[in-house]
Amino acid sequence: MAALVLHEYAASGNCYKIRLTAAHLGIPLERREYDIMKGETRTPQFLAEVNANGRIPVLQSGNDFLPESNASCFYLADGSDLIPHDRFERADMLRWMFWEQYNHEPNVATLRFWRECIGEANLSDAQRALIPAKQGAGEAALALMDEHLEKRTFFVLDRLTLADIALYPYTHIAAGGGFDLDAYPNVQAWLARVAALPGHVPMDA
Amino acid sequence: MAALVLHEYAASGNCYKIRLTAAHLGIPLERREYDIMKGETRTPQFLAEVNANGRIPVLQSGNDFLPESNASCFYLADGSDLIPHDRFERADMLRWMFWEQYNHEPNVATLRFWRECIGEANLSDAQRALIPAKQGAGEAALALMDEHLEKRTFFVLDRLTLADIALYPYTHIAAGGGFDLDAYPNVQAWLARVAALPGHVPMDA
Repeated sequence: MAALVLHEYAASGNCYKIRLTAAHLGIPLERREYDIMKGETRTPQFLAEVNANGRIPVLQSGNDFLPESNASCFYLADGSDLIPHDRFERADMLRWMFWEQYNHEPNVATLRFWRECIGEANLSDAQRALIPAKQGAGEAALALMDEHLEKRTFFVLDRLTLADIALYPYTHIAAGGGFDLDAYPNVQAWLARVAALPGHVPMDA
Repeated sequence: MAALVLHEYAASGNCYKIRLTAAHLGIPLERREYDIMKGETRTPQFLAEVNANGRIPVLQSGNDFLPESNASCFYLADGSDLIPHDRFERADMLRWMFWEQYNHEPNVATLRFWRECIGEANLSDAQRALIPAKQGAGEAALALMDEHLEKRTFFVLDRLTLADIALYPYTHIAAGGGFDLDAYPNVQAWLARVAALPGHVPMDA
C-alpha cells in the first residue's frame, strides 16, 4: 500500500473506526485534522481535492482518495483476518456494516452529535422535531444488537471482524446521545470484550 | 451456493438490486413476495425466522438469512467481474454502495415511496415536515453523481460493477420522488448505458 493519510475529525466515531482497524492491523496512518464545526470540510479546496461530498473521514492512499468510513476499513483490512474468509460470513459482515450506516449511525451518532457537540439549545426546530423518532430508532438498533449478542461473543465470528469495529465507536459513546446502555447488558459485555482485545486503542488516543 | 430465495417486495428498488445482480451473473433466484403495506415483514414469524429488523430484502441461502440489499449483492457477486479485482477499486466500489445507503436511498427512495406508494395526502405531519430537507439532500446526491459521471462511463471501472447496480434502481425511478433527471444529463446517459447492457432486466420483470 502507498503512504496513508487519514483526513479526519478525531471526535467522529466514523473516523475512529478507521484508526481502530489500522491499530489492529499495525498499519501506520498519518492524521490530518479538520474542524467540522468551522466548516473546514466544505471549503472549495476540500470539495475539489479530498471529497466532493464534503465529509470526513477520507482515507488517502498515495494520490487516491477514499470516502466512507466502512469502505476505508475494508480497504485496510482486505485479505486479513478482520474479514471472514467464508463467502457467506464475509457478506454477513458487510450486512452489519450497511445496517450500521442505515439504522444505527443516523440515530445513535446523530443524537450524540446534536446533544454533545452542538447542544440541544442550539438545534433548529426541524432538528428538535426529529429527536423522538431518532431516539426510538436508536433504541431499536441497540435492542437488535443486544438480541443478536445474546448467544454470541462477536457479531459474525467468534472473534473480531470489521462488523464489530464498525459498530463499536458510536455504541460505546451512546450515553452522550441520551441512550442508557444499562438496558442492553449483552451490548455492554460485547463492548468490554472489544475494548479488552490486544491491539485495541481508545477513541481519544 | 445453496438454493437461493429472495424475500422481497418487488416494487422496492433495494430488492431490484439483488435481482439485477443475479441476472447479470445468470444465478437463478426463487422469489417470495411480502406486502410491506400490509405489515407482512413485521409479523412475529417474519421477525423470528427471516429478519429481526423487519425489513426486506433478505436473501436466503440454504438455511442462512442475509438482510441488507448491498450485502446480498456482494454475496452473489463475490469473486466475479462485478467486483473489481484491484484492492483500492474494490474499496471504492464499496464506498459508492455505502454512500448510496446513507446519502441517496434515505432521500431519493424515501420521497418516491412517500409520493408514489403512500401518497402525500396520507403522510404524517412529521413526514411532511421532512420533505424539503430530503428533496435538497436528494438533489445534492444526484448532482454529485452527475459530476462524478462527467468523465466516466460507469462509477468505478469502465464497465459495470456493484456500485452501478446499487445506484441504478432508485435513480432510474427518481422522477416518482419528484426529481427531474433532465437536470442531470450525465446521470441520464449512464442510466441508458446500464439499461443497454446484455443481461439487464427491468424492475418489473
